[in-house]
Amino acid sequence: MKSFYTTLITSLLSVATLPLYAAPWEALPNSPPIPADNPQTEAKILLGKTLYFDPRLSSTGTISCNSCHNVMAGGDDNRPHSVGVEGKQGGRSAPTVWNSAFLSVQFWDGRASSLEEQAKGPVTNPVEMGMKDWDAVINRLEAVPGYVTLFKSAFGDDKPLTADNAVKAIAAYERTLITPNSAYDRYVKGDKTALTEQQVKGMNTFAELGCTSCHAGPNFSGPSLSMGEGFFMKFPTFAGSQYETQYNLTQDMGRYSATKKEADKHLWRVPTLRNIALTAPYFHNGAVLTLDEAVRVMAKTQLNQALTDKQAQDIVAFLNALTGDFPEQTPLRLPSTPGKQIISP
Amino acid sequence: MKSFYTTLITSLLSVATLPLYAAPWEALPNSPPIPADNPQTEAKILLGKTLYFDPRLSSTGTISCNSCHNVMAGGDDNRPHSVGVEGKQGGRSAPTVWNSAFLSVQFWDGRASSLEEQAKGPVTNPVEMGMKDWDAVINRLEAVPGYVTLFKSAFGDDKPLTADNAVKAIAAYERTLITPNSAYDRYVKGDKTALTEQQVKGMNTFAELGCTSCHAGPNFSGPSLSMGEGFFMKFPTFAGSQYETQYNLTQDMGRYSATKKEADKHLWRVPTLRNIALTAPYFHNGAVLTLDEAVRVMAKTQLNQALTDKQAQDIVAFLNALTGDFPEQTPLRLPSTPGKQIISP
Repeated sequence: MKSFYTTLITSLLSVATLPLYAAPWEALPNSPPIPADNPQTEAKILLGKTLYFDPRLSSTGTISCNSCHNVMAGGDDNRPHSVGVEGKQGGRSAPTVWNSAFLSVQFWDGRASSLEEQAKGPVTNPVEMGMKDWDAVINRLEAVPGYVTLFKSAFGDDKPLTADNAVKAIAAYERTLITPNSAYDRYVKGDKTALTEQQVKGMNTFAELGCTSCHAGPNFSGPSLSMGEGFFMKFPTFAGSQYETQYNLTQDMGRYSATKKEADKHLWRVPTLRNIALTAPYFHNGAVLTLDEAVRVMAKTQLNQALTDKQAQDIVAFLNALTGDFPEQTPLRLPSTPGKQIISP
Repeated sequence: MKSFYTTLITSLLSVATLPLYAAPWEALPNSPPIPADNPQTEAKILLGKTLYFDPRLSSTGTISCNSCHNVMAGGDDNRPHSVGVEGKQGGRSAPTVWNSAFLSVQFWDGRASSLEEQAKGPVTNPVEMGMKDWDAVINRLEAVPGYVTLFKSAFGDDKPLTADNAVKAIAAYERTLITPNSAYDRYVKGDKTALTEQQVKGMNTFAELGCTSCHAGPNFSGPSLSMGEGFFMKFPTFAGSQYETQYNLTQDMGRYSATKKEADKHLWRVPTLRNIALTAPYFHNGAVLTLDEAVRVMAKTQLNQALTDKQAQDIVAFLNALTGDFPEQTPLRLPSTPGKQIISP
């Protein structure tokens, strides 16, 4: 079993071996990777969108996917910890659903290798949507005639109403939640007027400091890897800064909590920086309320750099250029159960 | 001070003096009454729609108007009691927002005379949206640049960001939430194929029994009255049925809780029956889970009639014909506060 320090050194070496400054800036593709066993179809996306907004997927009938991953906002809930059924709170800040289709693995600790697997989790998590199990979810959906129709339309007539199909549909909808055409993307594609002078400075500072070692690729969430492998980094990499106690950065063991492997202590999936200006508060525990402070914490804990005010401001200006175009959302009417209530009071 | 029995007799007389059987069936108008001091404008509706879907109007940032009055569903939350901030629950079932613009007064106990006045309530109710006061709401909105722009656009440059304007905007949006063109409406307008034979039977039974005495007018929520006056009925009117204890119908004192007038004990605003098939569970306390049972309870407690199965089924079939066309909703992106969090953790 590797010691804490071995892991630390390994992490540092992995940073060191990535090409600093290279930063081959990439625009966001218009579509994300699509798994072979879950091709996009209109019917599936329609079903997934309906499920995504339906609070009946929670025990109390009050929490939908959209409650914590609000697509009308930054794809999260702008809270340190999300609020689930009966006012319960989890221990981590909800990651954004926008562009999550480009992440190599899902959840802060990367415990799900796909959006499909991810979608299964919160529904039955007792502090999130609180359903007893997926059988209970399916029983409830079977009681809604409109869902029976939607599942048949998406998955055919042969036992379409299953947990696997429900999460396939939700994942298919989530793969439409892409925000291309940010100022950054337009700049990278050749429109040199798309960024302000300060933003270009911030972009260069971002690369020169080494932020791009981890926040790489078109989604700023790690170098392109085949899906399911994951790109994790230790946080904090440089231990002992004042931020560690100030923001309680090490209480949560990160990936270790999923794998129980010593080497995974304090490893976290590298989050996307796209639309980062919209997703305060920051980090796995949502302890940092502003982007300016988050940038300083990152520089210190990951790169052992104390930023000047100017550096921080430039980088923040650059990060604001990563806010993309959000496709209009038209939530569908939730299929009804005429004349009766299907959730126990 | 009137005694319980005097009030009961008065209620009975008021029923008796309304023209039974008359039932001048009316289709839903395409637009509701618009108050002179709050004309509809596109900018106002746009702002109101944004506010309606914004959970930042609640103390915890988790509850929007739409949480309990879900326009993607029946305009309510299909729960006996709504769940507000921190999992708190109120004592009454959320009424539907759809067609609420046609109601003479708002809230189950009619304590608000307009949608504007209604919209002020839940935001600062400790078990609903939990804001300390409207000053706190306005302070929060002022911190959102996008809202400053939206308020200016709707209300001009002279101190547009006020509580009065916020609720005017919300009410303006709510006045667009109209569901015309139900099978019933098409029938009334001359399409005799719009209702099934059973539905027509149910419609006649509904009138013959006297349901139309209270559920009158195009909204089935009382005879047309000038706004703000209200149409209240005692429930139960006929005391002593088994339903009274079974569904705990008299614990809540109704309008009395708002006015403290003896004569208002157990008076309730007559709710709309439009889209009633979508708004289970039923009554002020949401104690009745199915429409069939709700119809039997009403007949017994209000008209002293025990329905046959056939009568109940026919009436339920008719009530299902009151589900209208729901205009597509396109929730807007919530104005952001780039790089910072405005709700205290």
